[in-house]
Amino acid sequence: MDCKRKVPVAVVRRLPRYYRYLSDLLKAGITRISSHELSLKMRVTASQIRQDFNCFGGFGQQGYGYNVEFLYNELKKILGVDEKRYMIIIGAGNIGRALARYDNFEKRGFVVSGIFDVNPDIVGTELRDIKVQHMDNLKDFLKNNKIDIAALCVPYNNTHSVALKVVELGIKAIWNFSAMELDLPQDVIVENVHLSDNLMILLYKYLESSKE
Amino acid sequence: MDCKRKVPVAVVRRLPRYYRYLSDLLKAGITRISSHELSLKMRVTASQIRQDFNCFGGFGQQGYGYNVEFLYNELKKILGVDEKRYMIIIGAGNIGRALARYDNFEKRGFVVSGIFDVNPDIVGTELRDIKVQHMDNLKDFLKNNKIDIAALCVPYNNTHSVALKVVELGIKAIWNFSAMELDLPQDVIVENVHLSDNLMILLYKYLESSKE
Repeated sequence: MDCKRKVPVAVVRRLPRYYRYLSDLLKAGITRISSHELSLKMRVTASQIRQDFNCFGGFGQQGYGYNVEFLYNELKKILGVDEKRYMIIIGAGNIGRALARYDNFEKRGFVVSGIFDVNPDIVGTELRDIKVQHMDNLKDFLKNNKIDIAALCVPYNNTHSVALKVVELGIKAIWNFSAMELDLPQDVIVENVHLSDNLMILLYKYLESSKE
Repeated sequence: MDCKRKVPVAVVRRLPRYYRYLSDLLKAGITRISSHELSLKMRVTASQIRQDFNCFGGFGQQGYGYNVEFLYNELKKILGVDEKRYMIIIGAGNIGRALARYDNFEKRGFVVSGIFDVNPDIVGTELRDIKVQHMDNLKDFLKNNKIDIAALCVPYNNTHSVALKVVELGIKAIWNFSAMELDLPQDVIVENVHLSDNLMILLYKYLESSKE
């Protein structure tokens, strides 16, 4: 695996899991862990773990294992959650509301700074002490607030136009909860949470497994 | 790619996207699509699409493209969404409530049959005409209802014990919304929606992209 130029996506996708597990170890007062133990928990080979960490210079001491706190703090820096990151939620429907109320994000350093909608029944209501604003305020809000990420929780048919608007206003990271695939400029990063896709994949695997 | 014995996970993960896109084409009245056009939309090479479909016997006619309706119906069968599938939601907190109200699942043939919680303030309330039941009722409910999937939306620390209980009662497909990695018997299929992980991956990519 070549990670000299760019860390492969598969490695990136494992980082939050390492980080989460190390956070659990830290809470449990465990100070050292071998790559073997870590591999059992992560269901990745010990060699894979060493390769993954080598992408970032490697953090291990041969025969001695990893220092949990050190590794945790390194991953925290690599993931960029060593400082507060600011997010807005567009669309205060079911998913948007659930995100606004989800306190796990704050534990990871993510702060919901603003919530936007167009529905007059929703605009003006409060979600966790944040007043839902009309989309018309978004431009001014983004002028006055440093926002890293926009979570899009809008209806399917509106997703693309809202995404374009958000990007036009300078947002470069979009967390898309709609089933729509977004076609945006290359410098915009999109992560999709396609819940229905995920559910269909679960069903497929379950049906396959039932046949065995 | 060898998919004679088992369809590779990467192929399975693309199937819902193909299915979704074909559903859009069908709604738009488009009857034929070439693998080239499909590949542009899916951001997968045309050769990859042909390989993917070959895992299921291939559905294409050379130089003629795919019949959208036929392909859609084939994928529907492969994904198992050609008949109704029944789901329960355990934990009627923010995420559980959002899932219960999410009408996209029903469009894909998934029916929420029951919702369970232990909180006395929540048990007995209604979500979309479904009365939230106490977890103590789960055993009897599962005896009397054919359930394919359990969505776990319970607090982190309870996830493992609830998963074990659900599995003990015969559920073989778990949709896990908690950040906890579940350690369950091999014949139980788990799909995780780790929202915080997803958010951290988005942040990582965004920060990397900002450096360029």
